[in-house]
Amino acid sequence: MSDDELRLARAYLSRVAEPPAHAVAALVAAVGPVRAARLIRDGDVSAAVDSQTSARRDGDTAAEDLAAVAVLGGRLVIPEDGEWPAWPFNALAVAASHGLRCGLEPLALWVRGDGELAKLTERAVAVVGSRAASAYGQHVAAEFGFGLAEAGVTVVSGAAYGIDGAAHRGALTAGGPTIAVLACGVDIAYPRGHEGLLERIPHHGLVVSEYPPGCRPARHRFLTRNRLIAALGEGTVVVEAGKRSGAKNTAASTAALGRVLMAVPGPVTSASSSGCHELLRSGEAVAVSSVAEVIESTGRLGVDLVEATRATEVGLPQGEALRVFEALPLGSGISAEAVAVESGVELPRVRALLPELELVRLAERVDTGWKRSHEGSWRGDT
Amino acid sequence: MSDDELRLARAYLSRVAEPPAHAVAALVAAVGPVRAARLIRDGDVSAAVDSQTSARRDGDTAAEDLAAVAVLGGRLVIPEDGEWPAWPFNALAVAASHGLRCGLEPLALWVRGDGELAKLTERAVAVVGSRAASAYGQHVAAEFGFGLAEAGVTVVSGAAYGIDGAAHRGALTAGGPTIAVLACGVDIAYPRGHEGLLERIPHHGLVVSEYPPGCRPARHRFLTRNRLIAALGEGTVVVEAGKRSGAKNTAASTAALGRVLMAVPGPVTSASSSGCHELLRSGEAVAVSSVAEVIESTGRLGVDLVEATRATEVGLPQGEALRVFEALPLGSGISAEAVAVESGVELPRVRALLPELELVRLAERVDTGWKRSHEGSWRGDT
Repeated sequence: MSDDELRLARAYLSRVAEPPAHAVAALVAAVGPVRAARLIRDGDVSAAVDSQTSARRDGDTAAEDLAAVAVLGGRLVIPEDGEWPAWPFNALAVAASHGLRCGLEPLALWVRGDGELAKLTERAVAVVGSRAASAYGQHVAAEFGFGLAEAGVTVVSGAAYGIDGAAHRGALTAGGPTIAVLACGVDIAYPRGHEGLLERIPHHGLVVSEYPPGCRPARHRFLTRNRLIAALGEGTVVVEAGKRSGAKNTAASTAALGRVLMAVPGPVTSASSSGCHELLRSGEAVAVSSVAEVIESTGRLGVDLVEATRATEVGLPQGEALRVFEALPLGSGISAEAVAVESGVELPRVRALLPELELVRLAERVDTGWKRSHEGSWRGDT
Repeated sequence: MSDDELRLARAYLSRVAEPPAHAVAALVAAVGPVRAARLIRDGDVSAAVDSQTSARRDGDTAAEDLAAVAVLGGRLVIPEDGEWPAWPFNALAVAASHGLRCGLEPLALWVRGDGELAKLTERAVAVVGSRAASAYGQHVAAEFGFGLAEAGVTVVSGAAYGIDGAAHRGALTAGGPTIAVLACGVDIAYPRGHEGLLERIPHHGLVVSEYPPGCRPARHRFLTRNRLIAALGEGTVVVEAGKRSGAKNTAASTAALGRVLMAVPGPVTSASSSGCHELLRSGEAVAVSSVAEVIESTGRLGVDLVEATRATEVGLPQGEALRVFEALPLGSGISAEAVAVESGVELPRVRALLPELELVRLAERVDTGWKRSHEGSWRGDT
């Protein structure tokens, strides 16, 4: 089986069968792509495969498609290639074995860009969200995109307006890497306003699609595409999502694929964050507020664990010492006996604690007795 | 044992022992308040009790304290009274039996206001947060305070600047009820700027303290006080909290007392919400975005369960019908055969689905074939 034969067969299959085409995938798994393509072309297939292929089986444009993508500096990546993201896509096979709708490995991937797909997805996180994003959401998406890319983590997203675009742009600002997974052919700039963005991404990452060149974007294709975004990342960060956002579909795939689902909190007064808050409230997603927390949550990346941020009240007296300190006036001094009454701490303990507080400059001995030291005021939020 | 004797004894105990005074509490539990007060006054006590009482035992101002509070329209509520919040405070006893620091029922409570404490805490939620609150946090606290009070849920807080004050004010706007638990005597307006607020609360709820009149606020008293705020509510909502906010102390008490801990998400770019996000990320708190969610989370209140908010994509075609719809052009019509090729759906199914789409006004038959109906565009966020 020559490499050309394999690639032509998978190019043909990628156009003839609209994903998700489970029956076609099963046939390819059973007899291999070259024989599967021949059987489909001849109509010599089961009813299930026939229903998924009869509409397009007569138009074999595999050679033209490969040529068209090559002109753009692109290529068809197939499972037989070394750069096939076999490990990330393994989750799709596992999900398929559980009968989950999102569980289906693509038959091939059309790719633009110089990077190796498998290498770029070794450390990757998906950053997704609403097209109707707020300024806050776009700011956070850009910051996360930048920070992840700077940490060498590939930012995977869907090239849509709003959160997706901001995440890609953030990553590009850091010099990449980033991967845009499209719901149309890699030769189509969609959305139109992201033409420039989609031209830049191949220089710092990859533009990827399971749809052949010329294939138009469509709603069902976005939903089908979302499983690939979820699969290519170690986890998915939902930056902003309204109640009906498509990002919630990617979130569902993320959970179904056993990936880490993360959500960014936002103002509860913002409808753009309501989907994120639903995911947090239900426990489906873990809250992430920073790139460090994203990296910490996507365990397999496990390089830079976020620093422990527990408040340590250094320098504050505790227990009886605190009570004695609080009993001290700021102005003129009072006697140890008065401190005992005010604090409720017995006199011998007061006499022992006052010099200790003096040592750490919280108390001060004056003519009239004891007072709080000027240096001994602390700030804090009770 | 006369009522007067009991009240005088507990008034004396409330001043002589600085809470938390576990040894004194144990003595009172063992011999009753009147005998405990006498033993303490005489110095006829164990070393543990002695160390908690020796500093103040000689100054018995019980009668004066009761008179001073009566002048303000207040009273001392004691465990022997019918209005003692025995059920909410039961959690303190349970926590004590587990050796937890926050587990200690107060010896008595100084109270201003006409409401009955037990009745007002039948349905109550604590709303707390930073003094250094943002405009966002104060807005949410006021909204939650208003909405809870309007639903007949008592808003418990600490009368501090920032979130506490906003929560009380929100409740007052709805006509109450609200309870302010102070870390000083109920005759002291602290903070000074909340003097007016503290004057209004007794008319629509209660101002409560375990500290006797004249007792000054102090840092350790805020920490001790926080357990009462946590205990008096079915749950605690942390609206905003920085990394070192005292609200995190109330949050810890809430969890230790087995109450529901809730946190309001906010912008991750705001330091004022970082404490809330920590609580959400660790799983200690559940996210709440609305009053309805607070009421839903504090189960025992269980009156108005929040409406299910799952998005239902009514009216959207699914599966093959969606693919056929997406294949339809907006301009001039195309043949069913062309729709089959574009959609990848086999021709007989396309022929069956097009009239179905026409019925629901998503497709339209024209001279040249089939096109998308003008009414057949839907809005949605993919």
